[in-house]
Amino acid sequence: MSGQSPAAERHTSAVNDNLRIARTARLWPIEEIAHRLGVPGEAVEPYGRGIAKLDLSAIDALAGQPRGRYIVVSAITPTPLGEGKTTTAIGLTQGLQRLGHRASVALRQPSMGPTLGIKGGAAGGGHSQVVPMERINLHLTGDLHAVAAAHNLLAAMVDNHLHHRLEPQLDPQQIHWQRAIDINDRALRHIVLGLGERVDGVPRQGGFEITAASEVMAILALADSLADLRQRLGRIVIGYDRDGQAVTAEQIRAAGAMAALLKEALKPNLLQTLEHAPALIHAGPFGNIAHGNSSIVADRIGLHGSDFLVTEAGFGADMGAERFFNIKCRTSGLTPDAAVLVATVRALKYHSGQHQVLPGKPLPDSLLAENPQQVHAGGANLLKQIDNIRAHGITPVVAINAFPSDHPSEHAAIVELAASVGVKAVLTSHVLDGGDGALALAEAVVEQASAGADFQYLYPDELPLEAKIARIATRLYGAADVAFSTTAQGQLERYQQQGYGQFPVCIAKSHLSLSADPTRLGAPEGWTLPVREVRLSAGAGFVYALCGDIRTLPGLGADPAAAHIDIDAQGEISGLF
Amino acid sequence: MSGQSPAAERHTSAVNDNLRIARTARLWPIEEIAHRLGVPGEAVEPYGRGIAKLDLSAIDALAGQPRGRYIVVSAITPTPLGEGKTTTAIGLTQGLQRLGHRASVALRQPSMGPTLGIKGGAAGGGHSQVVPMERINLHLTGDLHAVAAAHNLLAAMVDNHLHHRLEPQLDPQQIHWQRAIDINDRALRHIVLGLGERVDGVPRQGGFEITAASEVMAILALADSLADLRQRLGRIVIGYDRDGQAVTAEQIRAAGAMAALLKEALKPNLLQTLEHAPALIHAGPFGNIAHGNSSIVADRIGLHGSDFLVTEAGFGADMGAERFFNIKCRTSGLTPDAAVLVATVRALKYHSGQHQVLPGKPLPDSLLAENPQQVHAGGANLLKQIDNIRAHGITPVVAINAFPSDHPSEHAAIVELAASVGVKAVLTSHVLDGGDGALALAEAVVEQASAGADFQYLYPDELPLEAKIARIATRLYGAADVAFSTTAQGQLERYQQQGYGQFPVCIAKSHLSLSADPTRLGAPEGWTLPVREVRLSAGAGFVYALCGDIRTLPGLGADPAAAHIDIDAQGEISGLF
Repeated sequence: MSGQSPAAERHTSAVNDNLRIARTARLWPIEEIAHRLGVPGEAVEPYGRGIAKLDLSAIDALAGQPRGRYIVVSAITPTPLGEGKTTTAIGLTQGLQRLGHRASVALRQPSMGPTLGIKGGAAGGGHSQVVPMERINLHLTGDLHAVAAAHNLLAAMVDNHLHHRLEPQLDPQQIHWQRAIDINDRALRHIVLGLGERVDGVPRQGGFEITAASEVMAILALADSLADLRQRLGRIVIGYDRDGQAVTAEQIRAAGAMAALLKEALKPNLLQTLEHAPALIHAGPFGNIAHGNSSIVADRIGLHGSDFLVTEAGFGADMGAERFFNIKCRTSGLTPDAAVLVATVRALKYHSGQHQVLPGKPLPDSLLAENPQQVHAGGANLLKQIDNIRAHGITPVVAINAFPSDHPSEHAAIVELAASVGVKAVLTSHVLDGGDGALALAEAVVEQASAGADFQYLYPDELPLEAKIARIATRLYGAADVAFSTTAQGQLERYQQQGYGQFPVCIAKSHLSLSADPTRLGAPEGWTLPVREVRLSAGAGFVYALCGDIRTLPGLGADPAAAHIDIDAQGEISGLF
Repeated sequence: MSGQSPAAERHTSAVNDNLRIARTARLWPIEEIAHRLGVPGEAVEPYGRGIAKLDLSAIDALAGQPRGRYIVVSAITPTPLGEGKTTTAIGLTQGLQRLGHRASVALRQPSMGPTLGIKGGAAGGGHSQVVPMERINLHLTGDLHAVAAAHNLLAAMVDNHLHHRLEPQLDPQQIHWQRAIDINDRALRHIVLGLGERVDGVPRQGGFEITAASEVMAILALADSLADLRQRLGRIVIGYDRDGQAVTAEQIRAAGAMAALLKEALKPNLLQTLEHAPALIHAGPFGNIAHGNSSIVADRIGLHGSDFLVTEAGFGADMGAERFFNIKCRTSGLTPDAAVLVATVRALKYHSGQHQVLPGKPLPDSLLAENPQQVHAGGANLLKQIDNIRAHGITPVVAINAFPSDHPSEHAAIVELAASVGVKAVLTSHVLDGGDGALALAEAVVEQASAGADFQYLYPDELPLEAKIARIATRLYGAADVAFSTTAQGQLERYQQQGYGQFPVCIAKSHLSLSADPTRLGAPEGWTLPVREVRLSAGAGFVYALCGDIRTLPGLGADPAAAHIDIDAQGEISGLF
């Protein structure tokens, strides 16, 4: 009837299910959810129905409570569609709650760019969603806009500094601070600004990045207090002066106003899952040029307000989990107790190299036929990502995120693969069944967390930056070698000399492969990681290496998601998923 | 001690007073304020302490209540410092409340650009403020960001349309839709975008305007319902196709998603004055290229929830009040019952042409010496603005906004001037004394409103656009003639042919003079209004004429306000006023 393929029909039906479930959800008053966390009423600031901001005084108020278990949810190398880390984190939380534990989930706030571009909603799916879904996907409490405002205030003050020729005299060719926007707008990637007349500023090249890619967003996620936020903003390096000296946001006199603009944004947002578990949605740094993890302040509240805090780290375990361990935990001093590695039948078949999967398109029907051999063929990726978590002293539980199109023989293949390296793999059907579908996963996670972990960083602070990059590439990615460009070498020397050698590193590469080449599936070996450029996030406190083409401002397709979104006279929004 | 002049010291001391008063204010729970308006609890959505959004269902819920009196506060032609319309509107509301009436105030939401640039806070002053002041000045509930997001989504979809060569084929040289940002950033006024490679879009000229100048903001202020908002967004004309046909946001398929992005923004924000009168802060369209008045939906709630709704119209009576009458009231069908014209001793002395007043600088000491003759010399402006209100069938009350540096003889001069044309002028000291200081003003306004007005528009819908512009210029501004450029003539013919001839017009000119030349003070005569260009706001529903240099994106000074703003570890913000 619809002319869709069976796969496309299933996709459409799943989307409609998500919407129907989210719309019929009965929200509990957010004050009750806050009460479950033990957050005192005076720290709870409602922001519309079912949403509150939590004042950071909640951290002190909860400090006397025992710290819960800290669980990170990561994944094998995903297909362009994603493998369900968010739904698994939500489902696991609901499963833990069904087992009688106090459990909370901490997630990143999604960028509106992809929501309006290609991806649709980002609040989980099926019976494992955070609600109210529309608010999560559109503005939430405005934190992303506050980040963009702080970012763009600094940019305006930088160009104003140039215009009025203030001291220190900036070198216009060495200004690295761009502007930020939360829209997929390719035409703003590269611009010439300051055109017009004398009163319209100094002409120079510039550009925009998506708000999630802003260093301000990374800072928001890593700051431990308002005072820490203020200091980190001041340390941002925006470029260099005519003598080659780094110039900071503090010197541009922007950091105080930036912090004032972020006063509300630093307060974590509290929402709820469909089963009324507390959901902390706060900060959403990019997963390639930044660390791709939600905020430290939200985790602190969740950890002392629950028996278990479940959090998600962006992309595969080589990326999000690595940064969770080596950047986020290093910054906060918190240590994880267990890890979950999400795997799907479809992704393992994809890693066999026999299929093409494109974002925004339904899965090819060929991927859906029963084929446990293909699961085994793609299993190298699963084994490598298990090993990547183990490199940090933690044995993961593999969560097999079940899809209706899976076959039992294919699930069995994943269990066998995991068992071959002594790891437990558990089927979870949280999308269809909510917390009930994640009971086995929750039990396995409780067991693993109780067994205790021997957490360790992959590298010590004092290892030089170059060696840190090499260690991640060879130990986690499976690279044989790293090739630094001349530019990158010069930058690494400069940062090392300037005293940034103690920083952790963040490697910006494709998330679709363990390598920097998105077409190399499975667990490629014998390749060389090409480091084109290295940049400094002095405020956030890390150095990041660009490997391959990394775009920090997406574009829209010929038929963008936004073109299908509408709202009726009663305020019902359609097309958002 | 401080090395400041007496005038500068007074200014600093007033700022400190504002801050101290705002900080020590005891807010009532916002639910109680909503209750005073008669808004049912289910339509009240708290957004942090002391702030709520009101669902538009409140309009229907209040429809059975009698409509209160509708009072517009305008001013004589201001100095660059402003003459206190906002404080007068707030003080008058508090005065009406002291007299035992149910009174509310409706104000525009200030742009963050000036707050971080030159102007400082915009929530009133002294004992006539709306609180919480910090939230009003920084983000409030995010409406301005939502407007910018909707605006920039359309911009991204326009350039995406070009990039993917979609139908109708746009003429890149006739795209008028710019991008929006709520920061004073002169370097973004004129840019070239779409640079880089093929995948980075189509190179063309573009630019940014401040969010307040966005047509989306004008639409938000004029929309009467969500359905009306949706339709207006679809009617926005973004430019022309290769056949010279106008292309709308509906054709770009952006209007549905834009409306979804504005769902929360369309709900008026409820706050309170220091004396707990309801304050509706909603929408903030520019006062030159747009109509400079707060939203219609907020006024509807306030009018049916109070005996008196006081609202402020931007700039002098020739601008904000004219548009209040001829654009806002024409669109809503609501009619005003009385008007207040704010005058100050300092502004009338300024109109004598004997002084220089600069924004961001304290008043020159010479302006402060007792000099009633100078007040009389500048009085032509007061008389002309009284006449401008009377041209709409309403006799204003003149509010003499008292400053500590005024002299009684100077106040008497204003009373005499007003009396010479049969108008009452009343001293008000609401900044120092709150509502108690505005009792006489409140009494005069009650009397005037009870006398009944014979409200009329300045021109009928069917008058051609050119004649509408000429009528405003000659009848209100005192121009002898209007000179239309060839460009403007062509545009007017085009709009007239395209069926936009019924629209009201908005004249963008200097607000510092009745003429288009900011240096011509008093009430200049015998001059010609030069109309350089005419543009269409098809969604908002008006045509606007550009007279002289109108900048839609301000810049920062060498010592911007933002450089003085900071926040301490406890979250106390300094330097915001």
